[in-house]
Amino acid sequence: MAAKKEFPLAQVYGLLEPGPVVLVTTTRAGRANVMPMSWHTMMEFVPPLVGCAVSNQNYSFEILRATGECVINIPAAELVKKVVACGNVSGRSVDKFKTFGLTPVAASVVGAPLIAECYASLECKVIDRKLVARYNFFILEVVKAWIDPRRKRPRTIHHQGEGVFVVPGRTIKLPSPKTSFLTK
Amino acid sequence: MAAKKEFPLAQVYGLLEPGPVVLVTTTRAGRANVMPMSWHTMMEFVPPLVGCAVSNQNYSFEILRATGECVINIPAAELVKKVVACGNVSGRSVDKFKTFGLTPVAASVVGAPLIAECYASLECKVIDRKLVARYNFFILEVVKAWIDPRRKRPRTIHHQGEGVFVVPGRTIKLPSPKTSFLTK
Repeated sequence: MAAKKEFPLAQVYGLLEPGPVVLVTTTRAGRANVMPMSWHTMMEFVPPLVGCAVSNQNYSFEILRATGECVINIPAAELVKKVVACGNVSGRSVDKFKTFGLTPVAASVVGAPLIAECYASLECKVIDRKLVARYNFFILEVVKAWIDPRRKRPRTIHHQGEGVFVVPGRTIKLPSPKTSFLTK
Repeated sequence: MAAKKEFPLAQVYGLLEPGPVVLVTTTRAGRANVMPMSWHTMMEFVPPLVGCAVSNQNYSFEILRATGECVINIPAAELVKKVVACGNVSGRSVDKFKTFGLTPVAASVVGAPLIAECYASLECKVIDRKLVARYNFFILEVVKAWIDPRRKRPRTIHHQGEGVFVVPGRTIKLPSPKTSFLTK
């Protein structure tokens, strides 16, 4: 089981900017749930802000709105079957942690759990609900970040739709005078 | 030069959901500009809505706000050096199309041009500015989509920060009962 270390908040954007599928955990009344998500984007470096669209038909939608807390966990390719399985049933009827063999670990700031099997976990609080009613769009602040330092090049999962995923292959490094010239 | 065909709007999410770096074009007073962007997310399937954060220090920010139009162009890996080059200078001082050898092609609905060298291009209109003042966040509707049908598996570019990019390697296909279970 991965032992995660605290990760600098200023580097969080590099985990999400490439666009991986994530597993979002929420909890209410002592019962935790897991939802795959890939409609998310960074919105600010520090504090790291993440915007995400969550269908209001999802069980997690109502819990996220009610509790204002979640954890964004980033799975690598070896978890892809569990990711798909989590997306194909509802937390209304299934305890996905037990059913799919995922291990909840207590977070430090929020009530929702980290997922031990994911290489990175971001504890988040909802800070803006202005677009929830119209677009199901939440703005989250990452308040604590964790990473497994032993995973040097995790193969994240990227969803192209209809059950087709790609994982990273070749890496390209190019000199850039700015931290994240792509967004500045 | 790629000859693009019209692409169904209902399939646009599959192009952006994996999280590629895109090249956003804008135009004002007959002068077009190009900006790399990777802080974007799908927000709705049909009509396809895209949310994106654009720094208000970018030359493109003001043009996007003023004109309410842009084109999201998706480059493949062979363009990565041009993508980085476009991000390292400002359109205030440089004509990036000329300087970096990109070819503008007239769009059908918006004033901003498609980029011929990119394998897909999405004509967009700004439909919601509620989060622009606070988060520099625009909500766009894709009103027309174009793709080069000869490109079967384009290697999109994914930015991990500080000039490090990954391109897709292995593809994984898993049975899924839903179109996009990850967001439903």
